[in-house]
Amino acid sequence: MSLPTSDTTKQADGRTTMELGQVLPLTAEVKDGHLFVGGVDMVELAHEQGTALVVFDEADMRSRMSAYVESFAAEYPAPTHVAYASKAFLNKEVCRIANELGMSLDVSGGGELACAQSVGFPMERVIVHGNNKTPKELEEAIAAGVGRIVIDSRIELGRVSEIAGKLGKVQDIYMRITPGVEADTHEYIRTGCEDSKFGFTMREDFAFNCVEDVLNAPNVRLAGLHCHIGSQIFALHSFKEAAAVMIDFIARIKERYGYEITELDLGGGLGIAYVAEDAPSTIQQFANVTCTAVKELCEERDLVLPALSVEPGRSLVANAGLTLYTVGILKTLPGIRNIVAIDGGMSDNIRPALYGADYEAVVANRADQPRDKVVTLVGKHCESGDYVVADGSIQTPELGDVVCVFGTGAYCCTMASNYNGQPRPAVVFVKDGQARVVTRRETYADLYARDL
Amino acid sequence: MSLPTSDTTKQADGRTTMELGQVLPLTAEVKDGHLFVGGVDMVELAHEQGTALVVFDEADMRSRMSAYVESFAAEYPAPTHVAYASKAFLNKEVCRIANELGMSLDVSGGGELACAQSVGFPMERVIVHGNNKTPKELEEAIAAGVGRIVIDSRIELGRVSEIAGKLGKVQDIYMRITPGVEADTHEYIRTGCEDSKFGFTMREDFAFNCVEDVLNAPNVRLAGLHCHIGSQIFALHSFKEAAAVMIDFIARIKERYGYEITELDLGGGLGIAYVAEDAPSTIQQFANVTCTAVKELCEERDLVLPALSVEPGRSLVANAGLTLYTVGILKTLPGIRNIVAIDGGMSDNIRPALYGADYEAVVANRADQPRDKVVTLVGKHCESGDYVVADGSIQTPELGDVVCVFGTGAYCCTMASNYNGQPRPAVVFVKDGQARVVTRRETYADLYARDL
Repeated sequence: MSLPTSDTTKQADGRTTMELGQVLPLTAEVKDGHLFVGGVDMVELAHEQGTALVVFDEADMRSRMSAYVESFAAEYPAPTHVAYASKAFLNKEVCRIANELGMSLDVSGGGELACAQSVGFPMERVIVHGNNKTPKELEEAIAAGVGRIVIDSRIELGRVSEIAGKLGKVQDIYMRITPGVEADTHEYIRTGCEDSKFGFTMREDFAFNCVEDVLNAPNVRLAGLHCHIGSQIFALHSFKEAAAVMIDFIARIKERYGYEITELDLGGGLGIAYVAEDAPSTIQQFANVTCTAVKELCEERDLVLPALSVEPGRSLVANAGLTLYTVGILKTLPGIRNIVAIDGGMSDNIRPALYGADYEAVVANRADQPRDKVVTLVGKHCESGDYVVADGSIQTPELGDVVCVFGTGAYCCTMASNYNGQPRPAVVFVKDGQARVVTRRETYADLYARDL
Repeated sequence: MSLPTSDTTKQADGRTTMELGQVLPLTAEVKDGHLFVGGVDMVELAHEQGTALVVFDEADMRSRMSAYVESFAAEYPAPTHVAYASKAFLNKEVCRIANELGMSLDVSGGGELACAQSVGFPMERVIVHGNNKTPKELEEAIAAGVGRIVIDSRIELGRVSEIAGKLGKVQDIYMRITPGVEADTHEYIRTGCEDSKFGFTMREDFAFNCVEDVLNAPNVRLAGLHCHIGSQIFALHSFKEAAAVMIDFIARIKERYGYEITELDLGGGLGIAYVAEDAPSTIQQFANVTCTAVKELCEERDLVLPALSVEPGRSLVANAGLTLYTVGILKTLPGIRNIVAIDGGMSDNIRPALYGADYEAVVANRADQPRDKVVTLVGKHCESGDYVVADGSIQTPELGDVVCVFGTGAYCCTMASNYNGQPRPAVVFVKDGQARVVTRRETYADLYARDL
């Protein structure tokens, strides 16, 4: 691996900037050698709150949420809805912010719904997902008055119809279609291809043949169609392909049943920058490509424009988040690698072990120095697969240094475990020089509170 | 994949037995078509407690713990200690049982130590592990009076020496050696090879050269040596190789420093049966091979037999545990696969996604029927990598069936997450026809209790 001679740049005004491309959160800057985010010194914050610590740049998160809402509204003449996919990162505060910015909310089970309810998120803006929502979860959702339930199978259609009837309601539903699009991403997060547990498969026209049952089912109303081709997708043409499949499906439903589908949900999946070289499309480009495709396709097929929904998760929060750790152990394995052990790991970030994910890291207390050392950042867990960065560049680390790993805002906290009895980190939102703890650190007592 | 025509057998006494080899817990049996464990009907238990539900066969767990304690005592003329590696599965009740059976306990961080303390586990029988114990964790451990701390690096040696001095104690320590043995197992759980974050490497005689520092460090006493070559190991010769490296090391220390190492800890790692074809060595064979090797090697080198410790985790609890799920969705992808969705998945068992782990499953309410259908058991999580069994045999599943996945006693609960807002399962111990909830199911309120 070739090393950069320097990846920080001294600006004319004396500030130092880091050359980490789109990985950095919006307000990241270096002052007196320290990494600042949201105007808060990450080194001081780590010392105050302890590590491992998860930090979110609130301005970054809000700016991406607004960019989605505004770009889709600007690019599309019919109504648009941006639903935050809460599986990426969920706590009460992010729910409140999404609500404040007028977003909808994706939940995929009773637990996520309960969080939304606990902060008074408007239930009509909640979309319920999942390939196997339990009958109990469906009843909770319908009773709560959620806006849309995404029906994933024929079995679920019957279940929702029955429960809605029992509760004396007519439930608006989406039908999830598996469009047969092979998005270029990790196989674990590729969901739109034919070999998928999700949705109604288009193979042998199964999905289309089920539409009649959906239209005839009592106590439900087919409000729209849904698809989701996967996560962390860089090639926008995959979204165009999915849109084409869905518009064709809408046209065929109109033709066969005379039924106009009025809402189209194209799911999420826009990729983000995990490493400096990553150059994902912008939210604006994604909105432009998606909206243009739907508009053109509807025009071609002479369809009224459906209301358009998208469901970003990772692309809203991943780059807003970062994790601070303290360096505890340094080891040199001669001729093999330099090991830097931090006080967290696979318990707070399973993504490297699970997907082989890459991250960028800096020493937050010497962030103005070049990242001239190649090290492997390992965690404190009793497992060799416990690493956060494999052979990545960083400032030469010393014991007690605060290491910042960028881009950890999505699928880290929500997938966190207590492996090796590790308490889960606190979560702090930073903005305008202020730090707010929004989720407190887990205690030892919390870990065994359920033991009888 | 070839299907068994039948993998249950009617016995002369009318009982049905399942042909699942060593996968089954000790007391598993089939009565009137239902799976019973510990004399408890798993179908009734699932209906009473809800699913996903983790169940442990207490007799199985106790019998394996006793087998370890007794086999090592029988095979070895000097003192032996069997330390339960709590990272495999930890709650208060398993701690109490291990204590009752006279075992020692491995902990690898403050959280695990706190659990041991909460049930009054004798601290002198606690061994503290970890490649990066924090200074706070070390202080907690030394203050608590733990029996042994396994020193993983020269940095940690200094830290323990300093903290023990501050607390006015002399701490007994083990020195963890990386013996350079390549155990044949998944790379994530192979820990004894040269490219490892664990221990003092033997490369360039680094470990040996550090012994002088260890012997000279104040406030610590070098009680013994430790190694651990990995987990889920089938080939016993790897343990012999490790023993040979360690005995040679002990002989060299005696020769160079005149210092007699009186305790040897060979770690854990005995493999277990996850699928019916797996034929791991027995605990007795493991004890025999290990003890014989150490005895012979010590005799050759004219060494006094050290007290011998081993640290089993998986091989004590994995096969004692099982997970019960309810079938929620059935989907046939024509020409591709049959999908059976259960009400849990990667949140309660990340091992298939993380290691490609295999499991055996049965329909607990038709356990006397042949497993004549090949299906993929998927979870309820919004991710394609969320599966528990890929293309495995099971009785033809129906909606509402209770599915039992065997062998989930290790590294499932301890690695569990709340992904998709999924509450973690309850844990029930069964024995002599009685079921005891030892860890209650997580509630929705628990999930966001730390949010401010």
